[in-house]
Amino acid sequence: MRDLSNDSRLLAINSATVKTWTLEQLVDGCARAGISAIAPWRDIVQAAGLQKAGKLIRDAQIDVSCLCRGGMFPAADAAGRQTVLDDNKRAVDEAAAIGARCLVLIAGGLPKGSKDLGGAHAQVRDGLAALLPYARAAGVPLAIEPLHPMYAADRACVNTLAHATDLCDELGEGLGIAYDVYHVWWDPDLAAQTQRAGKRIITYHVCDWLVPTKDLLLDRGMPGDGVIDLRHIRAMVEATGYSGLIDVEIFSAQDWWKRDPDEVLRTCLKRHRTVV
Amino acid sequence: MRDLSNDSRLLAINSATVKTWTLEQLVDGCARAGISAIAPWRDIVQAAGLQKAGKLIRDAQIDVSCLCRGGMFPAADAAGRQTVLDDNKRAVDEAAAIGARCLVLIAGGLPKGSKDLGGAHAQVRDGLAALLPYARAAGVPLAIEPLHPMYAADRACVNTLAHATDLCDELGEGLGIAYDVYHVWWDPDLAAQTQRAGKRIITYHVCDWLVPTKDLLLDRGMPGDGVIDLRHIRAMVEATGYSGLIDVEIFSAQDWWKRDPDEVLRTCLKRHRTVV
Repeated sequence: MRDLSNDSRLLAINSATVKTWTLEQLVDGCARAGISAIAPWRDIVQAAGLQKAGKLIRDAQIDVSCLCRGGMFPAADAAGRQTVLDDNKRAVDEAAAIGARCLVLIAGGLPKGSKDLGGAHAQVRDGLAALLPYARAAGVPLAIEPLHPMYAADRACVNTLAHATDLCDELGEGLGIAYDVYHVWWDPDLAAQTQRAGKRIITYHVCDWLVPTKDLLLDRGMPGDGVIDLRHIRAMVEATGYSGLIDVEIFSAQDWWKRDPDEVLRTCLKRHRTVV
Repeated sequence: MRDLSNDSRLLAINSATVKTWTLEQLVDGCARAGISAIAPWRDIVQAAGLQKAGKLIRDAQIDVSCLCRGGMFPAADAAGRQTVLDDNKRAVDEAAAIGARCLVLIAGGLPKGSKDLGGAHAQVRDGLAALLPYARAAGVPLAIEPLHPMYAADRACVNTLAHATDLCDELGEGLGIAYDVYHVWWDPDLAAQTQRAGKRIITYHVCDWLVPTKDLLLDRGMPGDGVIDLRHIRAMVEATGYSGLIDVEIFSAQDWWKRDPDEVLRTCLKRHRTVV
């Protein structure tokens, strides 16, 4: 069994955790902290420029666990869906340019004014199906991320590991799962669904659920500060054969985003060793 | 098929919707508005006194769909669990005294300091099992209410209709389900799980999911103001044979709780006729 306390090479820093940093600052900061992998969001990659971003990452020999994020498939009409598809193709190009191991996608919610959840589910499936050939040709695996059910209306109507796995089964090669403990920890069926998801899990994210949680989006905790049994869930995920990177992704407007990013990285590294 | 537009006798007002009112005010207010059923929380029943509350309700010939709420089973130790059981027995007594059709229970979350979600699930099952003989003897059906997964840590670790139905199957006679659209609307498996829950559904609650939702607990919407397809879900529930009352329960610190309660009741009545 792998020694969980001694594997800091598995730690990847998601750029949302150190939100004020540019891509260059993130790469430099990780080098200073002895961290060898990152998971950037599209904003900092685009701000750097694709070519420069790729060179920066290759020169630093830093690993890119995933690019965050595309998706957001449901739209009110065909023109809206075409705009989404075009943007997602650009996200695939960006992921390829920086050598990301996968592109994370969130489903998207209900189109404005709609109450048709079943229709939104169908749009997500169709949107993924339309994007997949392009992603396969580019050699970029897609990772659908089930988000917590509290985001069903406005961010993502794929809210369970079971639903994400069903999509993988239906759409086949090239589609996997982004498994984020924050979104799935509460699921009474988590053990069985994690086992079922198995090899479809292609990226693994951690943070923590705080009690109380003061904001639906921006009050996520540093691993160890909340109630998620991180070691237990990680063991379940690694039992499926997952041996990849572990991204720390923390949206925290009132706490971690206000701190010195170098301190945040040191804390991530420590928590990775002790509680993740 | 029942005419959904003409059934105001099915409307019950949950006391949480008009939070400033006493039981007496709630009963009088419903009489003024032509509403024939209520769903009080324990606080206003206790404040009135059990005997007076029962008389008030009988004299007004008002129907009581349910008493809200008991439960909160997980505790850190045996003494804590005994305190919970004793309190839940008092809630059963209160429900009997006011002729409530059932007692709503929420599961409770993780005991302070615990990350053992599986252990909390087991405590909920054991707590229900311990309470059931008392409730059966009192002739008070218990209704376990699955709450939205965002409450898993601190309010209720039973978060899906499937889990609630499993508990009913395991524990048998005397335990049913409180089905609140706010908590279950996002479930991709809702149609199948509603059908499976079937006759176990013994009380039905409505409000709406607002976009954006600004607070995890106190920003629920008036039916029709959010994204839940209320008529669709009601049809699924009534297809199981449910023909009981429909409670409007709205936690809304910044909106409905600040309005004139008589206006709130008129709005509930109107929305009941038009969108519920």
